[in-house]
Amino acid sequence: MKKLAEMLPGKVSTEPEDLLCYGFDASGLQAAPAAVVWAQSAEDVAKILGFAYSNNIPVIPRGAGSGMTGGSVPSKGAVVLSLERMNKILEIDRENMSVLVEPGVINGNLQRELQRHKLFYPPDPASMDFCTIGGNVAENSGGPRAVKYGVTRDYVMGLEAVLPDGRIINTGVKTAKGVVGYDLTRLLVGSEGTLAVVTKVRLRVLPLPEAVITLLALFDDTARAGAAVGKILTNGIIPRALEFLDRGTIHAVENYKPVGFPKDTEALLLIELDGRPQTIAKEAERISEIIRNLRGEVTMAEDEAAGEKLCEARRAVSPALYHLKPTKINEDIAVPRSRIPEMLMTLNRLSEETGITIVNFGHAGDGNIHVNIMADRNNKEEYDRAQNLVKEIFRATLELGGTLSGEHGVGLTKAAYISMEIPPAELDLMKRIKGVFDPKNILNPGKIFP
Amino acid sequence: MKKLAEMLPGKVSTEPEDLLCYGFDASGLQAAPAAVVWAQSAEDVAKILGFAYSNNIPVIPRGAGSGMTGGSVPSKGAVVLSLERMNKILEIDRENMSVLVEPGVINGNLQRELQRHKLFYPPDPASMDFCTIGGNVAENSGGPRAVKYGVTRDYVMGLEAVLPDGRIINTGVKTAKGVVGYDLTRLLVGSEGTLAVVTKVRLRVLPLPEAVITLLALFDDTARAGAAVGKILTNGIIPRALEFLDRGTIHAVENYKPVGFPKDTEALLLIELDGRPQTIAKEAERISEIIRNLRGEVTMAEDEAAGEKLCEARRAVSPALYHLKPTKINEDIAVPRSRIPEMLMTLNRLSEETGITIVNFGHAGDGNIHVNIMADRNNKEEYDRAQNLVKEIFRATLELGGTLSGEHGVGLTKAAYISMEIPPAELDLMKRIKGVFDPKNILNPGKIFP
Repeated sequence: MKKLAEMLPGKVSTEPEDLLCYGFDASGLQAAPAAVVWAQSAEDVAKILGFAYSNNIPVIPRGAGSGMTGGSVPSKGAVVLSLERMNKILEIDRENMSVLVEPGVINGNLQRELQRHKLFYPPDPASMDFCTIGGNVAENSGGPRAVKYGVTRDYVMGLEAVLPDGRIINTGVKTAKGVVGYDLTRLLVGSEGTLAVVTKVRLRVLPLPEAVITLLALFDDTARAGAAVGKILTNGIIPRALEFLDRGTIHAVENYKPVGFPKDTEALLLIELDGRPQTIAKEAERISEIIRNLRGEVTMAEDEAAGEKLCEARRAVSPALYHLKPTKINEDIAVPRSRIPEMLMTLNRLSEETGITIVNFGHAGDGNIHVNIMADRNNKEEYDRAQNLVKEIFRATLELGGTLSGEHGVGLTKAAYISMEIPPAELDLMKRIKGVFDPKNILNPGKIFP
Repeated sequence: MKKLAEMLPGKVSTEPEDLLCYGFDASGLQAAPAAVVWAQSAEDVAKILGFAYSNNIPVIPRGAGSGMTGGSVPSKGAVVLSLERMNKILEIDRENMSVLVEPGVINGNLQRELQRHKLFYPPDPASMDFCTIGGNVAENSGGPRAVKYGVTRDYVMGLEAVLPDGRIINTGVKTAKGVVGYDLTRLLVGSEGTLAVVTKVRLRVLPLPEAVITLLALFDDTARAGAAVGKILTNGIIPRALEFLDRGTIHAVENYKPVGFPKDTEALLLIELDGRPQTIAKEAERISEIIRNLRGEVTMAEDEAAGEKLCEARRAVSPALYHLKPTKINEDIAVPRSRIPEMLMTLNRLSEETGITIVNFGHAGDGNIHVNIMADRNNKEEYDRAQNLVKEIFRATLELGGTLSGEHGVGLTKAAYISMEIPPAELDLMKRIKGVFDPKNILNPGKIFP
């Protein structure tokens, strides 16, 4: 580590405080790295990786550490490579509707900067105020707007990245289309920092929508809320967000940061429309009609500020749940949208059978449910029961044609379960692709693959 | 081959007529395979590949043979594996907005079937009336609607495919989102049949847009046509098609299939809007204003049938050009949209300097230009000059930040040029990924990589 500190003066720390701060992420998992290094350029990253490669030292790339599955939690003796200082927006190309950013740029900062240019970058993870674009690329992050606009993958045009042996590569194109060679760009997107360290990201952006309308729908019956979701979408309306909160989640939010949701509600839908003002006004009318026909109660946020307030409430869900129980096992399964009601019924059944509280919220429009299993890590018996539930939930998810993760990735927390979803031949291909990029297995080892 | 015929009775031919018919594609390249096999199931494909793998026989997967770069042209002694009989639409899941199809389904047939269900699959290559979804997946096909809706990659949710050694794999998810493991799905999309043979495709579909308006704009100056394109898009209007034809192309179409375009036009824009009727009526107004302000002449197709007629004309471009000269070297470069005027100027200069006719048309909205170098293959001197031009054009394209192919892929015709665009480290990664899937190099050998 001394040699590394000499190579990168002022950028390497072995202070206990830093080793502590950079040793965990939002999964709650924790381990102490051997050192933390802050890169400020692709060349820095190349130096660090070149050194680590020669000396067989594991390197853990890290954005804001807001990941949910331990993807940036270090293994013992590893170097944490923080990209947070590479936080510049390098280029806003309005003519070609693209931006070039460093990986440490905070998602929300990019959103705000683009807004000033009347541009729009849709992916909006709940952690948008602190998560980084580099982290979003590593995890292929989604967010409420995915139902209309897709996920991070759909916006990454090209990458600059550093291979584990220190070579800098460039993938993708600066053009809207490009089909020369294999799609290395999308192979890196969602690879959870196991194939290469991203040092520049070119993103496609869209024109800023002219207007936004937010609707809130309350139902005293979950099945009718589900029917409303189906009805809205099959009517040809694609809202930019179509979120649901179950009863347990509504209560938790109200207790943490009161918004004024009635307490006798079984299911809540939060619907955002964007586009031309007249178009979305019509769509809002039609949605209101659908909701009322299903005996839901609907209110429309009168202006964007009021709408934004409701969305803030949605983003408060995650912290609010920590007030229910000290530990939250947070899964992010996805099922085909039409299977959501069945999935919720199964979750309720499992909760009743085990006596463990499960609260659910998420993206009704795309079938991505955030399942929160509430327990106390310090109550061993309860925590074990909660852990056992995870496998049951995954089994039910896969039976409904779903996936173990819609947004959070595999990381450490789901690595033990990956073979429930990915069969041996496919898993073998993935491992051999890992070997192509990282033959010495120094980059984020132990993640994804058990 | 006799053994193969025994394994798959009635599905193998070595008739000279079949060897001829299945020996070429739209690139004009041709070679005789050793046999043609028509698979009717994934199991058939697995049998054929298993046999070929054991016996080191090259296998060339083939959809409709409408590819532009020789991707399905066999090498000597190879078996052509035709997927055209696997042409069933297996499932239309309206609730979850997805369809499951076999690879031999014709793109246009899927479009029409979906229309009956009020659904919409956007990718629309000019060859849509005969090209197959499997071929579209192999090439990551685009089409005019890519400017608004993206390309094939953006609609493929998951694949069933057969590895070169005969193992059947499944990639991707049935859900809108999924981030478990590496993105094998998008690695296969655009891999030009070199990694695996696709046997089932799950595609995302959209609600059918309520209405379409088509606009035709004529300019006596190319630069002003280019300015109109920029102006439309920076006004926040994203048409579902934004096509341009240059003077040479307009003349060729008129001579082949007269539509009534005035002959003194320098550039023509064909603009399609889709969405809610009132919204697009407003957008059409705004576009007309932009065009007139730039001294263009604009006409609006009064109904969908009239609009469809104009789009048919666009699709007639390719055959029309064969009437100019017997041989058409058809490149499909893409540049960042703002660089189109520079690119067209360079193309005109190169045409003047060499005396070779070059006509250009394409997708102005996404910078994808179809550059057609017109020559006679039987006039050796002229054809050599035309061939030399290709490299010049590629060099200019890359200097403008472009790519050698926006839609057609590399295949055989661009393999010699791939290293102009893809640097050694990236090319090496791609070749090693090929090795992971196809260690014996039996699947479509000689394509993409020189």
